[in-house]
Amino acid sequence: MSTILTGAKQIVTCRGPNRARRGAEMAELDVVDDGSVVIGDTGRVEAIGEYSELRARHPAAAVHEVSGVLLPGFIDCHTHAVFGSARLADHERRARGISYKEIAAAGGGILASVGDVRRRSVSELADLTRARLSALVANGTTTVEVKSGYGLELEAELAQLEAIKVLSENGGPDLVPTFLGAHEVPPEARHDPDGYVSLVVEQMLPAVERQGVARFCDVFCEPGVFTIEQSRTVLEAARRHGLGLKLHADEIDYSGGAELATALGAVSADHLAAVSEAGISALAGSSTVAVLLPGTMLFLGSRDQAPARRLVDAGVAIALATDFNPGSSPGLSLPLMATLGVSQMGLIPAETIVAITVNAAAAVGEASTRGQIAPGFRADLTLIAARDWRELPYWYGVNLVTEVWIGGVACHPREWPVNCLG
Amino acid sequence: MSTILTGAKQIVTCRGPNRARRGAEMAELDVVDDGSVVIGDTGRVEAIGEYSELRARHPAAAVHEVSGVLLPGFIDCHTHAVFGSARLADHERRARGISYKEIAAAGGGILASVGDVRRRSVSELADLTRARLSALVANGTTTVEVKSGYGLELEAELAQLEAIKVLSENGGPDLVPTFLGAHEVPPEARHDPDGYVSLVVEQMLPAVERQGVARFCDVFCEPGVFTIEQSRTVLEAARRHGLGLKLHADEIDYSGGAELATALGAVSADHLAAVSEAGISALAGSSTVAVLLPGTMLFLGSRDQAPARRLVDAGVAIALATDFNPGSSPGLSLPLMATLGVSQMGLIPAETIVAITVNAAAAVGEASTRGQIAPGFRADLTLIAARDWRELPYWYGVNLVTEVWIGGVACHPREWPVNCLG
Repeated sequence: MSTILTGAKQIVTCRGPNRARRGAEMAELDVVDDGSVVIGDTGRVEAIGEYSELRARHPAAAVHEVSGVLLPGFIDCHTHAVFGSARLADHERRARGISYKEIAAAGGGILASVGDVRRRSVSELADLTRARLSALVANGTTTVEVKSGYGLELEAELAQLEAIKVLSENGGPDLVPTFLGAHEVPPEARHDPDGYVSLVVEQMLPAVERQGVARFCDVFCEPGVFTIEQSRTVLEAARRHGLGLKLHADEIDYSGGAELATALGAVSADHLAAVSEAGISALAGSSTVAVLLPGTMLFLGSRDQAPARRLVDAGVAIALATDFNPGSSPGLSLPLMATLGVSQMGLIPAETIVAITVNAAAAVGEASTRGQIAPGFRADLTLIAARDWRELPYWYGVNLVTEVWIGGVACHPREWPVNCLG
Repeated sequence: MSTILTGAKQIVTCRGPNRARRGAEMAELDVVDDGSVVIGDTGRVEAIGEYSELRARHPAAAVHEVSGVLLPGFIDCHTHAVFGSARLADHERRARGISYKEIAAAGGGILASVGDVRRRSVSELADLTRARLSALVANGTTTVEVKSGYGLELEAELAQLEAIKVLSENGGPDLVPTFLGAHEVPPEARHDPDGYVSLVVEQMLPAVERQGVARFCDVFCEPGVFTIEQSRTVLEAARRHGLGLKLHADEIDYSGGAELATALGAVSADHLAAVSEAGISALAGSSTVAVLLPGTMLFLGSRDQAPARRLVDAGVAIALATDFNPGSSPGLSLPLMATLGVSQMGLIPAETIVAITVNAAAAVGEASTRGQIAPGFRADLTLIAARDWRELPYWYGVNLVTEVWIGGVACHPREWPVNCLG
């Protein structure tokens, strides 16, 4: 049965072409005052308009009264949500000024998460992740990109991707799985990084394709992790295996990641705190979305945010995401990322809304299915207790979300138990 | 009837002397594993210990099973929670790089809130504030200091304080009212700031005392707002009228505010981003609590946080608060302030817990009644969905609070409607 949602003070539609907004387009939201939305029994939006007119055209539809502002469901286009335990000790060590190298030597850092994930079963990983996905939905997120990358060996990488698959089959947010076998060189391959790259290319990628458990492949391209050449090798192989491409690019030090991502036609280049002018130009001339992660820099206490303002002014399409992970960003709120987009990056409020909806959809290759409230799009909607959409990035650190629809199915975050996150 | 709360994985008691913790003491939390708490019918904590022992001593008590970590209810010791509308346009203007002066000239800034408050009735102000207090409690806050200061004329200042009084009589968090008539020079007194100070001293303070509507007096001591001499004049008069003292000190530029606050025996000196070495020494040698407001600097996009690490290392007692207000900090979450304490200020997690409990209690003159889970203290408690208290500042931007007790009365944040904040 169809449903008419009515009573919303504003509907932020983000309607427009089925592609990312770039440059000045990012400030255009298309806000409908006092409108209604028809959700069809297909789980898609059928129409937006005045209640009386929609009612006449859909006489059999159920009517659901809402209060507040409706937005496209938020899309978290960069997370590492499948992990084992929190890394609480690392948090305190970093606060005490202990360096990343010393933390790693003390058994912390990313390899702590790798050891942890390798010891867990698919169902354990799925259970841990389920609570985190609940918290994401409670904060308005309806689609979540989730990366592997804490396995760094065939079986454990597949276990992470299998956990994502299990979670995809049980309702909840729509998940976009990304294979990130080249997240770090595992301890057993420290002496031979090229050998590990060969393992990723020759063993892991064929298995990932065979099992059909990933839509994208990502690589952590960074001096000291994977070089431009190694990254290219992995991504070109991934393309042959039918995967879309993403890239952790120019996060801490410049290495030309943005240029590589655009040259390979990646859907996104992520992080970019150290992007070059040439990288900005390359992004502006491409359809690659720049995915910026302001929570990570905040949580790490770094002052180097990606140059969001310069990117937008150069005509680049940018998205914002949480980077949710146990080391550098245990954060789950896209509205907070919007606040940080304004306060830490110089974006204006409208740009931050586009960055967590339509542009985030493009960053997971879904610009034609979600990120807008428009006929034919998935009925992924987020309702906030507000009179004006500008309240979303304004009231910070507080959850304004009162209701969420995922593929047309209503979820009431208030009724969900708040669970331990791990 | 008494109640035994049992099942908590940890109880963070913060037990110790009835005064602020300073320097190295700030890292000591006193955590009890798998313990129980008895809440007496007086609304006070009666005992903490092992369930079987407490049960034997309190055979008639009701038993309430909880899951997670219990902490002292959080205390927000610096807010401007009584205001009219949100200042959404200012947020966008600041993002566009428009200066504070230009924003003020365009009708924004603090004087926009002053005009707004002057046009509203006590009951309108109370209604607007009620939704905000709900959101504070939902995020674990059980005591809130609330300042006037958007009236800047006798009647409107009293209306704000009356609104706080109305809200105090209807359950909810415990409120600590502060008179901040000297928040800014109102437009009609621009030509004669000393004349306005006289008005505050001769008209407002006597009326505030007569009506019994404030416990503290605060002044915005800052170059270009109120001078050291003007601030001293107001605070000395306030003391004669029986009010405790607080001071907005050295927020943006140094003027010796910390030194003045300690010389006058103020309970707190607040902001302190521009505190001097002499100010730090003065604070270390006094019982004045340094109240730091990291959310404000975050929201304003400033890189200048108060030197929290140096303050603690010098032996100062610090508290963290939201500074909740419609201009520079529309933020309501003390757990997020704890996260910022770690990531932006170099505090360790334990210090941030003390800073929003026992030290925040001292900053509102209540170190002997709240801020600890200890016999005789108010049963103000916050339960979070976690296994380890260190998760509170770690999972950021997400609300872990599942239950709150205020004076022994249970509130379930999940069951509260999320309301428009204004």
